Amino acid sequence: MTSTIQPKILPATQSAVNPPLLIGDILKSGVRMAGDNQIVYRDLSRHSYSEFEKRVHQLAHLLTNQGVKAGDVVAVLDWDSHRYLECFFAIPMLGAVLHTVNVRLAPEQVLYTMEHAEDVFVLTHQEFLPLLQPLAEKLPAIRGYILCQDTPEAVKTSLPLKGEYEALLAAQPEQYDFPTFDENAVATLFYTTGTTGNPKGVFFTHRQLVLHTLTEASSVQAPGFELLNRDKVYMPITPMFHVHAWGIPYTATLLGAQQVYPGRYEPEMLVKLLVTEKVDFSHCVPTLLNMVVSADAITSGKVKLTGWKVLIGGSALPQGLAKKAWDLGIDTRSAYGMSETCPLLTGSILPKNIADADFETQLPWRCKTGVAVPFVDLEVVDTYGKPLPHDGESVGEIRVKSPWLTQAYYKEEARSEELWQEGWLHTGDVATIDEHGFVMIRDRIKDVIKTGGEWLSSLELENLISQYPGVAEVAVVGVADEQWGERPAALVVATDPSKPLETTAIQKHLETYVEQGKINKWAIPQQIMLVEEIPKTSVGKLNKKVIRQQLAD
Amino acid sequence: MTSTIQPKILPATQSAVNPPLLIGDILKSGVRMAGDNQIVYRDLSRHSYSEFEKRVHQLAHLLTNQGVKAGDVVAVLDWDSHRYLECFFAIPMLGAVLHTVNVRLAPEQVLYTMEHAEDVFVLTHQEFLPLLQPLAEKLPAIRGYILCQDTPEAVKTSLPLKGEYEALLAAQPEQYDFPTFDENAVATLFYTTGTTGNPKGVFFTHRQLVLHTLTEASSVQAPGFELLNRDKVYMPITPMFHVHAWGIPYTATLLGAQQVYPGRYEPEMLVKLLVTEKVDFSHCVPTLLNMVVSADAITSGKVKLTGWKVLIGGSALPQGLAKKAWDLGIDTRSAYGMSETCPLLTGSILPKNIADADFETQLPWRCKTGVAVPFVDLEVVDTYGKPLPHDGESVGEIRVKSPWLTQAYYKEEARSEELWQEGWLHTGDVATIDEHGFVMIRDRIKDVIKTGGEWLSSLELENLISQYPGVAEVAVVGVADEQWGERPAALVVATDPSKPLETTAIQKHLETYVEQGKINKWAIPQQIMLVEEIPKTSVGKLNKKVIRQQLAD
Repeated sequence: MTSTIQPKILPATQSAVNPPLLIGDILKSGVRMAGDNQIVYRDLSRHSYSEFEKRVHQLAHLLTNQGVKAGDVVAVLDWDSHRYLECFFAIPMLGAVLHTVNVRLAPEQVLYTMEHAEDVFVLTHQEFLPLLQPLAEKLPAIRGYILCQDTPEAVKTSLPLKGEYEALLAAQPEQYDFPTFDENAVATLFYTTGTTGNPKGVFFTHRQLVLHTLTEASSVQAPGFELLNRDKVYMPITPMFHVHAWGIPYTATLLGAQQVYPGRYEPEMLVKLLVTEKVDFSHCVPTLLNMVVSADAITSGKVKLTGWKVLIGGSALPQGLAKKAWDLGIDTRSAYGMSETCPLLTGSILPKNIADADFETQLPWRCKTGVAVPFVDLEVVDTYGKPLPHDGESVGEIRVKSPWLTQAYYKEEARSEELWQEGWLHTGDVATIDEHGFVMIRDRIKDVIKTGGEWLSSLELENLISQYPGVAEVAVVGVADEQWGERPAALVVATDPSKPLETTAIQKHLETYVEQGKINKWAIPQQIMLVEEIPKTSVGKLNKKVIRQQLAD
Repeated sequence: MTSTIQPKILPATQSAVNPPLLIGDILKSGVRMAGDNQIVYRDLSRHSYSEFEKRVHQLAHLLTNQGVKAGDVVAVLDWDSHRYLECFFAIPMLGAVLHTVNVRLAPEQVLYTMEHAEDVFVLTHQEFLPLLQPLAEKLPAIRGYILCQDTPEAVKTSLPLKGEYEALLAAQPEQYDFPTFDENAVATLFYTTGTTGNPKGVFFTHRQLVLHTLTEASSVQAPGFELLNRDKVYMPITPMFHVHAWGIPYTATLLGAQQVYPGRYEPEMLVKLLVTEKVDFSHCVPTLLNMVVSADAITSGKVKLTGWKVLIGGSALPQGLAKKAWDLGIDTRSAYGMSETCPLLTGSILPKNIADADFETQLPWRCKTGVAVPFVDLEVVDTYGKPLPHDGESVGEIRVKSPWLTQAYYKEEARSEELWQEGWLHTGDVATIDEHGFVMIRDRIKDVIKTGGEWLSSLELENLISQYPGVAEVAVVGVADEQWGERPAALVVATDPSKPLETTAIQKHLETYVEQGKINKWAIPQQIMLVEEIPKTSVGKLNKKVIRQQLAD
């Protein structure tokens, strides 16, 4: 509802200052709160929060000396590192824009995003020099490259390198006088890929990131969630180029938590850091958790991850996976959001009576995407835009309002208007809300299987199949069917490749749910294919577009 | 530093909405988070959060029907109640301004504030009818009064009563379509009294209260503080008319905590509620905590308050009092702020190593006012405005910047400019900051005792005297002295009136601190007076102006 009312707005006295919400204050808070906590990078470096702050100031000097100024877009290509965290602060604090390049995209897509973002300066890990070198001539606006190296060997490149990150940093003064500016200035920019068309640029302002951080900081400390606070050790396993690792590096910094950055996600290094750094909290997509809980070192009991809390997002957490993790001492929760939403919208913050109950009772609650966090206005609506009741059954699309939603796709008028309709951001996710306000994602609108005039949730079917013993991973999609419109089909990966699964046994397993009235008979896939691997997108989600193509071939 | 830089500001797509920060979202969050939690009023009523929300909507209808509209100032005179909490939300959510009248002021001051605030409508507890009735003819702008009653007896008054709160509420529809408006709209207004001149009007906007609430919500859940979350029970013992009870009712609502409102502060009712409602967390001034820990029921062990957490503000927490409380199982922390700062600036959030240490180690940390919370920029400066080092020794005035500081005194240009100088709010408090960023208030600038060319902290002396056995309360002020300029003098209240204290013994006690090098010899008060009571201000602070007059007489 737009306002036509006239509330009282009073002038400030001449000398008063009402400071804007800027990212720099998140850093200051961390330094005050952090005591002796550190920023750790693999087994390579450790810095106290005070050193971290000093390095952010040095990076600001370095970039300023290289001609970077407010309004410029600076690209970063790196795995998760202390350097990346320094860029999370120094670049926006200058009034410049941090472009977190998705290094998992195909080279022509990387080129597209860097051109579209109008990057003028680049910080890159040495590993991406072969990627960047052939693109450079097509990116004439880029004035310079800074090299990030973990090891000191010489590199061969025709790129105009300005030097190495650590060496350049060490030469800078330790105090930068950061400017104050409009909180609506853009701080970050990154690209999200759909199944069609070019990647879309999503951007967030200082104000949006600050409000997201404050709300996330309160939520992650809440009882029933209790994921992160000053005394916990945090390590992301969702890349920092993917929605700022869900914004949690900003939140961890605000709270002053110990932070561990694992570089490129290598299973051995991840496990080593989890154990030696005593990591309390991580977040990742279900696929990655599945990799961890299926790793030999873990299943054999050689490595124990007892007490590790993992927040799952990106896709729904299957109950089978949550149970498997629990049996290994790993405590999972779910959250929901998307690139366009900064991303936090909901979290499976267990209500008190559920938090006090046994694991079996908690299981479905842990796997629902949970309740909207403060300042998120979330509705499930029917095709006419009418909000549906909170009955746990009415299925519709999720639409949201919040002070931290991207206000457009960068330079994409038509697609921006498609995202935003009638003042609501349309998520494209199909869900129910129960009487406790818990949201449960049923599907992507485009992945819903339309069969015999009904909507069938591919996620629900995946969830049921995942509970069959020996199933490591599963994807369900709709395939064209003359009689029914669509019918479900499934790809299944076995836990132990030497013990192939019987597809008829899986169908029989599903029949028990038909008898319990949980699904209809026509929900049982006629087509179940055993595969070694399920196609994934660059961020590790099931790539249903490719799966549909494979099944149609 | 004012900005001359040009960061990137991008337009929103036409259909996008970036919702303003409005108080209504705090309420919505509480309802989603609160599960079965309640709002309790004395032993008289209990409402679930859903009922509370419904009542806020009904109150909005009621006020709208009475002609209250956006921009109007609505006065509330009540003790701490569920009704007051409903007013905290309904009035600002209409775009109107909530004037929380300080009912402890003298009648002519109440009149002054209601006239100056331009109140147009009043909600009043029946207890304040005798106060309001003689003022009414001098307040012709007031269009109506609503009566708040705890008991149903008939009242006699010539005030134009519109009816009784509960009866009127029950007749209203349960759903109000609240407007959206500018987050810089004024939400609350109240008056702060100094030692000279008329009370000053302090006002806060929706934006300021939301940011204060989000930051407070994260801080009260932090390790080393751990005062409040969804699963705790909260009861204020700082009046709701005093800086919105430090904003904690808003914070408790955001988190969905159980809330207990004790009405008028009567010792028996307070103790009854603490015990029967299992209150986990309260906040109050030291004087009130002193009353509690000196009460017969408590000292005799008949009533146990084990595990009760109390946040102390308004004045410094003496170490003697914190120790006495600890011995009774009461866990104290300190916070610092003032009416003009919404109020939260700092809290004694214990660093990890201190939080893990024994009580004796923690004691001085608990009594310091602590570290600045996120988004508070706090400095201690010398008389030239130069920031002093964080060495725990350099004494100067505290000045602050933060997004939740009052931007002026209402209709007071000169005094507003006195508060704000060169873009900083000047607190008038004298303090040190140590190497951990912990702030320790040494005095009010005007209470510092200037003796022999040195600054002597009256608070420090009070702290030392409070540790002498048998001292219940103490106040130290400077009295004029021909030779020294000023000399300290003390008023002391004995714990047990039947066992008068020896003033020479107190002086001897102080000499041990002189030997330890903690104070100088001339810091020992020559004049120590045993009194039955120390003069207090309307909010329970030591009234040093009156004390100085008494001692000068």
